[in-house]
Amino acid sequence: MEEVEREQEEEQEAEIDPENNNPLHQTLIKRNRTLSSNPLALVGEKVSYIESLDYEINENDLFKHGWRSRSRVEALQYIFLKWLLAFLVGLLTGIIATLINLAVENIAGYKFLAVLEYINGERYLTGFLYFAGVNFALTLFAAILCVCFAPTAAGPGIPEIKAYLNGVDTPNMFGATTLIVKIIGSIGAVSAGLDLGKEGPLVHIGSCIASLLGQGGPDNYRIKWRWLRYFNNDCDRRDLITSGASSGVCAAFRSPVGGVLFALEEVATWWRSALLWRTFFCTAVVVVVLRAFIEICNSGKCGLFGAGGLIMFDVSNVTVRYHVMDILPVVVIGIIGGLLGSLYNHLLHKVLRLYNLINQKGKIHKLLLSLAVVLFTSACQYGLPFLAKCTPCDSSLRDAESVCPTNGRSGNFKQFNCPPGHYNDLATLLLTTNDDAVRNIFSTNTPHEYQPSSLIIFFVLYCILGLFTFGIAVPTGLFLPIILMGSAYGRLLGMIMGPHTKIDQGLFAVLGAASLMAGSMRMTVSLCVIFLELTSNLLLLPITMIVLLIAKTVGDCFNPSIYEIILHLKGLPFMDANPESWMRNLTVGELVDVKPAVISLQGVEKVAKIVDVLKNTTHNGFPVMDDGVVPPTGQANGATELHGLILRAHLIQALKKKFFLKERRRTEEWEVREKFTWVELAEREGKIEEVAITREEMEMFVDLHPLTNTTPFTVLESISVAKAMILFRQVGLRHLLVVPKYQASGVSPVVGILTRQDLLAYNILTVFPHLAKSKSRQKRN
Amino acid sequence: MEEVEREQEEEQEAEIDPENNNPLHQTLIKRNRTLSSNPLALVGEKVSYIESLDYEINENDLFKHGWRSRSRVEALQYIFLKWLLAFLVGLLTGIIATLINLAVENIAGYKFLAVLEYINGERYLTGFLYFAGVNFALTLFAAILCVCFAPTAAGPGIPEIKAYLNGVDTPNMFGATTLIVKIIGSIGAVSAGLDLGKEGPLVHIGSCIASLLGQGGPDNYRIKWRWLRYFNNDCDRRDLITSGASSGVCAAFRSPVGGVLFALEEVATWWRSALLWRTFFCTAVVVVVLRAFIEICNSGKCGLFGAGGLIMFDVSNVTVRYHVMDILPVVVIGIIGGLLGSLYNHLLHKVLRLYNLINQKGKIHKLLLSLAVVLFTSACQYGLPFLAKCTPCDSSLRDAESVCPTNGRSGNFKQFNCPPGHYNDLATLLLTTNDDAVRNIFSTNTPHEYQPSSLIIFFVLYCILGLFTFGIAVPTGLFLPIILMGSAYGRLLGMIMGPHTKIDQGLFAVLGAASLMAGSMRMTVSLCVIFLELTSNLLLLPITMIVLLIAKTVGDCFNPSIYEIILHLKGLPFMDANPESWMRNLTVGELVDVKPAVISLQGVEKVAKIVDVLKNTTHNGFPVMDDGVVPPTGQANGATELHGLILRAHLIQALKKKFFLKERRRTEEWEVREKFTWVELAEREGKIEEVAITREEMEMFVDLHPLTNTTPFTVLESISVAKAMILFRQVGLRHLLVVPKYQASGVSPVVGILTRQDLLAYNILTVFPHLAKSKSRQKRN
Repeated sequence: MEEVEREQEEEQEAEIDPENNNPLHQTLIKRNRTLSSNPLALVGEKVSYIESLDYEINENDLFKHGWRSRSRVEALQYIFLKWLLAFLVGLLTGIIATLINLAVENIAGYKFLAVLEYINGERYLTGFLYFAGVNFALTLFAAILCVCFAPTAAGPGIPEIKAYLNGVDTPNMFGATTLIVKIIGSIGAVSAGLDLGKEGPLVHIGSCIASLLGQGGPDNYRIKWRWLRYFNNDCDRRDLITSGASSGVCAAFRSPVGGVLFALEEVATWWRSALLWRTFFCTAVVVVVLRAFIEICNSGKCGLFGAGGLIMFDVSNVTVRYHVMDILPVVVIGIIGGLLGSLYNHLLHKVLRLYNLINQKGKIHKLLLSLAVVLFTSACQYGLPFLAKCTPCDSSLRDAESVCPTNGRSGNFKQFNCPPGHYNDLATLLLTTNDDAVRNIFSTNTPHEYQPSSLIIFFVLYCILGLFTFGIAVPTGLFLPIILMGSAYGRLLGMIMGPHTKIDQGLFAVLGAASLMAGSMRMTVSLCVIFLELTSNLLLLPITMIVLLIAKTVGDCFNPSIYEIILHLKGLPFMDANPESWMRNLTVGELVDVKPAVISLQGVEKVAKIVDVLKNTTHNGFPVMDDGVVPPTGQANGATELHGLILRAHLIQALKKKFFLKERRRTEEWEVREKFTWVELAEREGKIEEVAITREEMEMFVDLHPLTNTTPFTVLESISVAKAMILFRQVGLRHLLVVPKYQASGVSPVVGILTRQDLLAYNILTVFPHLAKSKSRQKRN
Repeated sequence: MEEVEREQEEEQEAEIDPENNNPLHQTLIKRNRTLSSNPLALVGEKVSYIESLDYEINENDLFKHGWRSRSRVEALQYIFLKWLLAFLVGLLTGIIATLINLAVENIAGYKFLAVLEYINGERYLTGFLYFAGVNFALTLFAAILCVCFAPTAAGPGIPEIKAYLNGVDTPNMFGATTLIVKIIGSIGAVSAGLDLGKEGPLVHIGSCIASLLGQGGPDNYRIKWRWLRYFNNDCDRRDLITSGASSGVCAAFRSPVGGVLFALEEVATWWRSALLWRTFFCTAVVVVVLRAFIEICNSGKCGLFGAGGLIMFDVSNVTVRYHVMDILPVVVIGIIGGLLGSLYNHLLHKVLRLYNLINQKGKIHKLLLSLAVVLFTSACQYGLPFLAKCTPCDSSLRDAESVCPTNGRSGNFKQFNCPPGHYNDLATLLLTTNDDAVRNIFSTNTPHEYQPSSLIIFFVLYCILGLFTFGIAVPTGLFLPIILMGSAYGRLLGMIMGPHTKIDQGLFAVLGAASLMAGSMRMTVSLCVIFLELTSNLLLLPITMIVLLIAKTVGDCFNPSIYEIILHLKGLPFMDANPESWMRNLTVGELVDVKPAVISLQGVEKVAKIVDVLKNTTHNGFPVMDDGVVPPTGQANGATELHGLILRAHLIQALKKKFFLKERRRTEEWEVREKFTWVELAEREGKIEEVAITREEMEMFVDLHPLTNTTPFTVLESISVAKAMILFRQVGLRHLLVVPKYQASGVSPVVGILTRQDLLAYNILTVFPHLAKSKSRQKRN
């Protein structure tokens, strides 16, 4: 991980394409004008080199031997372990989610109890100091952890997971430190009453658990269990992390099917039926764990963590009645949700760019920013309820569940500063945890609970907080802020439409939340199922579907989804599903022409050449060729044979293990197997600088044949970039060899190598700016 | 469509691999031992030639020009039309599903009312004759339609749709005749009380509607609307058919999310996020249409179609209570479901092979088989209730909804032959429509309604009927028979466990149905959501998930899913997601070596050669090469250039349009565009026999360059079959060019062409039987 020099950055800035003035399409990282020279991205506020993952199976002789010799027992071990790991991912995610909930509910609960005591005694200033002080301390704690120990734990983590599953390896995303900081930081930040949720962090936590389990523990203390070596490949790790992300969503919303669909619709790039099944198993385990904990906590053993502990907005007791005319308010909610969602995306993008300038100034600035936000939040949450008028309790509503006014930790009618028999509706929404606030604003059959003025104040406040809280250096989730904003405007809309519709105001709040989520995050099926499972009201389904579809359609007219915006901001080389239409007019041959000539190795190569190539390039794969071969079809003159592709890691392994020959010859199979096992070849670490080679060894040879992947994917040079991109993405490649369309002696069998960076639209456009003219054309589909 | 000679078949039979003696892996079609020689499959009981679909974009010069010249307005037209078609698919599927329901409920309803009148008058024999006569007539009608007009309308259609989305074009599957026969036949067969459902046929109906809309009407009366030409490609048709299949499931179960997931998990091979969204829109439309019709019918305008019209097993009024110990019966249900499901698959496979022997004998035999089944069904349904004892009505249960005993069309306590105040529990299950039977057996809070003996009779009867009804020549769905069997054994199990568990017997029936579905069809997430939406009880979710996972796991130990078995039986060249492990040990070079040499064309080719090639081969694609080209890298001697791949259809177009040149030269762009538009090239019909060419023309030349797809996908000859298969399936190819790994003058730039048939495990094993030895090894999942 290297930080880029600031001066160099400013130099490059002058080179940036002046045509590209759309602020939504600028990254925070400056790149220069050659293709794929700088695989840089912003990782936890630091600029890092990004590596691509390799989902292709590296079929070299050793792998094939290992494959053939794998016994039936080993295959069963592998399958068993796969399911065991899925079980453990679900189990641990469930347990950690419960623990986070427990901690948050207890910390925030005791905080609110103490504050309420001061308010009851009319010691308002002391109450505020206590409230703000506790929030300040909790945020400070969370922010220090994030800033000093794991910068990657800040933010939601979902864009990085999405990029990982697309094939982008962001460094330090799934480590043990990140996991611990994320858990503790999330508890601190949520307890501090900041406008953020634990949902996004839970997704990241689930993925961290999955990654750590798959590699057998933290980097330095890995269990070198024999069985685990099967999982030392990018492909199995990808599957595990997909399961982890699903488990996280499931744990956040207690929504097993929604979790699977979230991973499928939003996070994952590749998907197989078998994976669907295993992910489903994972979320089933999470749900069982959560249910078990709820059973335990119902008996009162969890402190202040009671019935309201696990977020679950139960509106199932409402009989939903609507007729054809109710479609109108539903359409209006959808349109407004789409507009507000895309506006939110647009503004959040600006705020994040501003925050990045502040964050670049150093750790102290990051801390100060977080603390400023928490102080502002606390002041508003405590101060604004004084503006609201006290409302007398409606005696007709007084039933067993909703006591009015309430003075306890949670409750729908907070007394706050009001006389007995009255409640402060704004305090009900602000002086409580975010989960409770959502539950209160979703409350049904309470048409006169909130005054419009209070809802407007709430909405405006959470719009501001939602924009300015997301970028601070603590684990932040986007779901809850958007739900809060959306439910406020939904309920407001319900009040306005009240006389003309039969739909309950609580349902309007739910629909508002759904519409804003769809307008900002642009998911449909998964959101629909999550809301279905959250509200446990199946009759809501048709109108939720309509709202989501409209909001997404409207939002898509303006800008991409919030996750795509963040991905782009961070400069992560994410590969889109649909190639741009101008990519059909460019061939890969033209693309590799602007790259430096490809560096290839001989089948039996001199050590000096290998060392030279490794030291002077940063490529991760090299084609291996043999000259003067006689092909089986019987050619008089010699042919050049493309043997395959060898990885940098395997070259380093060969040098490290001193797999040297005195003369230029091919090795026998036993010679190789004496030196290497396929397990070792799965290791991708090691640097050329760490390998010591004597001068005599430099003159020796290495037989690269047994280590070469003989089955690389190739494309003809005449193929269009669009098709190459589809192949690259669908098969999950790291290197794509370009072969010539000409067949003649002397033509090199490899014209070039394409990597992820070469196929990104942004990079291609910097080299072929004339293509940008047709860029404005509509993408197909 | 050609029928294969019977004699020839018998000759080939002797050649069948004697090792391959697993009955589950034998198809009904005999193939001989050369690779990909016989692309035959069983289509509606006829053996037909199967064509592969081409999901690859054919990027030739004309296409590129058409693409570039496509204006923004046209792109918007395309997007608008795409959504309009999705809307229409949803709308029409919803309407047709309602009409089918209306027709079935009314026909079956009046039939039962008449029969009950005879029974009330104790005229049992007349009642039986009437009952059996009506059923006989209805089945005869449905069967005659299927046998004479649209043999492809028989059966569920889901395997063929699954194959279509995998890239296998089954002839006559999605025509207008098939659609009409399927609708009317399904009404007849379901009304006749046969043990089959309308769910499978509805999926097929949805797909037919989608396909017909996409191509602008039936084959002979197509609307030649300008806009529709954009949809004249396999790719857009695939997307439409996916939406249609989802709409069908949604209409069958009133389950919008379940419909989307069914298409995703079971039917579709490729999936994109954008398609998820459009499919979801489709099912939303279906749900709105269904709701509208229910509103209309609730006011009593639909004859006998009442509240129970659209299948919806409402168990939402049950409070689900379960604790940890209830996990045991749930696990038991899952295991039994898996065992029974795989046993059912095994037996059904045997019955289908037997039926095929009968069906081959001619149309009369098919008809007789169907009629025998309906007579047996009617006799059992009418006669067996006489064996049951009459039960006195439980007065405590008598509430507004469930009158006891009932004499009307539907109802939970049928009086049948019992004295007043008593009911016949077997008549409740048998003498009613299948939908009502499911509703009755799912009924909750009625622990003593059914006697164990009645349930056992019901279960055994429906096991027999389920096996022997599926293969007859009427539109049959598999969902309902399996639900009936499963619910019976689930309820039985509930009775046995009754004292030890708190779970209601109705829920046991639901879980039993779910377990048998998972055990036979091997779906998980989609079934879970369908059951969630059917029962509208969210608290059931965790135990449903456990049951489904266990049943699928157990079932997978024994045999593949029922759809895969049918696919294999029909000989449809379905390409699996996971390559067999032995495919890693075979290269595509070895594979193309056993094929006949590839036939290639010159860039400017003589007409006589083209005609000769087209007449004497059945290939659908030919590589186009130019000899003696000087590559830009500057070669003294000439090189061979691989220009691309030309399709048979385009060659025929060139001949038809007389795109001939007097001398051997390249054409200019305007010459081509005068003759062809890219719209015409999308047409894939036409036969070489229909093209008349004079003797002078034979000596002329055709410039194939502008018609050649210059961007075909290629693989090196050294790549493994496993990887080639992944590429083939992931990108949706029809032809895969194999290029040599050697580079020298005189080496052909194309070593061979692989098609779908070449990559099927079964076909490869017939040529390389030694690989079968390692076949028993576990697949790497």
